[in-house]
Amino acid sequence: MTRRTPTGAAVLQTSVTEAITEAVLDEWAEHGYGRLSMEAVAKRAGVGKSALYRRWASKEEMAMSVISEILAAETSVPDTGSLRGDLRAALDAIMELYVHPRFSRILPDLAAEAARNPELGHVNESMVCTPRREQSRVMFERAIERGEVPADLDLELVLDLVVAPIYWRLSVRRVEARPGYLDGLTDMMIRAMSAA
Amino acid sequence: MTRRTPTGAAVLQTSVTEAITEAVLDEWAEHGYGRLSMEAVAKRAGVGKSALYRRWASKEEMAMSVISEILAAETSVPDTGSLRGDLRAALDAIMELYVHPRFSRILPDLAAEAARNPELGHVNESMVCTPRREQSRVMFERAIERGEVPADLDLELVLDLVVAPIYWRLSVRRVEARPGYLDGLTDMMIRAMSAA
Repeated sequence: MTRRTPTGAAVLQTSVTEAITEAVLDEWAEHGYGRLSMEAVAKRAGVGKSALYRRWASKEEMAMSVISEILAAETSVPDTGSLRGDLRAALDAIMELYVHPRFSRILPDLAAEAARNPELGHVNESMVCTPRREQSRVMFERAIERGEVPADLDLELVLDLVVAPIYWRLSVRRVEARPGYLDGLTDMMIRAMSAA
Repeated sequence: MTRRTPTGAAVLQTSVTEAITEAVLDEWAEHGYGRLSMEAVAKRAGVGKSALYRRWASKEEMAMSVISEILAAETSVPDTGSLRGDLRAALDAIMELYVHPRFSRILPDLAAEAARNPELGHVNESMVCTPRREQSRVMFERAIERGEVPADLDLELVLDLVVAPIYWRLSVRRVEARPGYLDGLTDMMIRAMSAA
């Protein structure tokens, strides 16, 4: 599911790719994956459908390629020197994502679509969730090296714990986090990860 | 958004309501809220559309009334005598909900729809999320009374923390929880709630 290699002398123009990317994200945020169509994306981007098919073989390839690349570009791994600092910065970044006008609509929609379409679910897990998770893992591995958390910390569990409350509050309940919420969450998580 | 009072001599038959409820849940799980229609529900339940409109004024009323009543019926508040026991039982119940063939599809779909439709979002928060949250609150209030957790425990945060990791893993990532996951989660949560 990587971007197709251009055939013959064709070169994929970056400006066209960018226009298509914007159009995919706008259409998806407005209408949901189910009603996302190659036609509407082409029209919105001001290009022909052939420009889309030169890049991706299907709507699924297009959608998942665009969302995984844009999220990878949005992700940065904080390195503040302490687990508390890293964790707080990571929570800030997660919250920013889930209040973002586009992603706050696209990401829950992707989860819902994945529930009806197991193949899309696997692609979502491998192209979107796992890469972000692997980036976050580094933060905890550094904390283990520094002796801030036990070496046998259950990272599978911790990595769920980091993203989940913010997703739950903002994307499922759709209730704002009051000031101090992320500070309280950081404190609770640090305690949760301490030695038993 | 409560069920309409029958007019005249009409009485709403329980067996008809049950058939409609089943049909709403099946149609919603299969096709999503966006493609849920009063027509398809009536057909599946083997009733006329008038049977639906005698109960609810719109698709939104029908869907939200059915899901909130069925979830209220599914919720029980464990009272095992200890926070650890109560929490473990609550996590079991939450996991059961998110692996349920119908609810594992309906609940993420409802979240996605609420992201596009703020009115539905408010109804979801008031009719589905808040009542379940208030039931769980009791569990922590008992733990405070027993002195198991600090009296100033941030319940807003804790109530997010209880549901979120299971929702995130099962409904968003759609990855199974390995054996021992809930035990590990219980331990982490107990530590998270302990005095600073």
